[in-house]
Amino acid sequence: MINYPIKRKTQNKTNNRANLGMTLENDIETTNQYYLINDIAVIHKKPTPIQVVGVSYPARNKAKIVEAYYKTPSTTDFNGIYKGRYIDFDAKETNSKTSMPLKNIHLHQIEHLKQVASHGGIAFLIVHFKQFNEYYILPSAILFKYWDLQNDEKKGRKSIPYQTFKDSAYPISFGYIPRLDYLKVIEQHYFAK
Amino acid sequence: MINYPIKRKTQNKTNNRANLGMTLENDIETTNQYYLINDIAVIHKKPTPIQVVGVSYPARNKAKIVEAYYKTPSTTDFNGIYKGRYIDFDAKETNSKTSMPLKNIHLHQIEHLKQVASHGGIAFLIVHFKQFNEYYILPSAILFKYWDLQNDEKKGRKSIPYQTFKDSAYPISFGYIPRLDYLKVIEQHYFAK
Repeated sequence: MINYPIKRKTQNKTNNRANLGMTLENDIETTNQYYLINDIAVIHKKPTPIQVVGVSYPARNKAKIVEAYYKTPSTTDFNGIYKGRYIDFDAKETNSKTSMPLKNIHLHQIEHLKQVASHGGIAFLIVHFKQFNEYYILPSAILFKYWDLQNDEKKGRKSIPYQTFKDSAYPISFGYIPRLDYLKVIEQHYFAK
Repeated sequence: MINYPIKRKTQNKTNNRANLGMTLENDIETTNQYYLINDIAVIHKKPTPIQVVGVSYPARNKAKIVEAYYKTPSTTDFNGIYKGRYIDFDAKETNSKTSMPLKNIHLHQIEHLKQVASHGGIAFLIVHFKQFNEYYILPSAILFKYWDLQNDEKKGRKSIPYQTFKDSAYPISFGYIPRLDYLKVIEQHYFAK
């Protein structure tokens, strides 16, 4: 049940771990387990949506799925509750040193985060700039601003500049236990007022 | 995107729809779509968790899952936000006329609902007594009481009596649009104070 975090080696700028796409997600899931075990918050990753087409029954009580396809998620990957507040976010990684491309984000994820924010939830992205090994909480208001402007000929652009993260997002420090204490940052910016 | 609800025929006590297990879930999902479209709440069903074992790539960009298995969910099926509050519930159907068997519920679902309740979320079950075509919101406190007592030799039992639903749960009326207006009932019992 408990996956104890494994101390990771110091990373060089060249990231040589095999399963890059899963790393941020795993770090968040490990952190969520820490939150759950220590009764800090109840936040889970939603399962990946899969469309099942074919099932066979090789053993009496065991369904074996033999044909299925990945579906596009209709919401974000993570949600739950912290101190009575609804929390909702997605995790994004980029190799870029200059910006986070907006094409990493689906329209329905934006729509979902807007709905969450308008109903009083805490909505954000956790963004990992892999080349710097830096993690940020990007408040949804900043995300929406860039998203809504992206097709504006004068002010629009297809990405959020790294400098915007430096100036306006909230850094998360990478640690041992928990690995990515993002709720500490949420606490500072959304609760401590 | 929008599944308009289809007016259903009056049901006799003999329920002859083919896909019984999916009905309550579909009614809730249709209701959730109504809530979303009308900006009342943001509540989604979580995808069914599936363990993917084998994937093939018949076309260049299309992964085909060729071996996978259903996993036991680690949480409930539904969660989201209503009026700033975190909402979390599962849906259960029973053919029994006398009680809802506790074996319909997994231990980790109970643990999850307890965690949610202790962090200030609104946790409950929606229970459908199919033989009566009656729907109830069962507050988590009642569920926990029966769950925790079930192995008590004197007071314990393996089910929650139908009479307890009549006495202490909150009925949901079945309608046209939305089909199962459970948030109206939540509003009355958790908000109107």
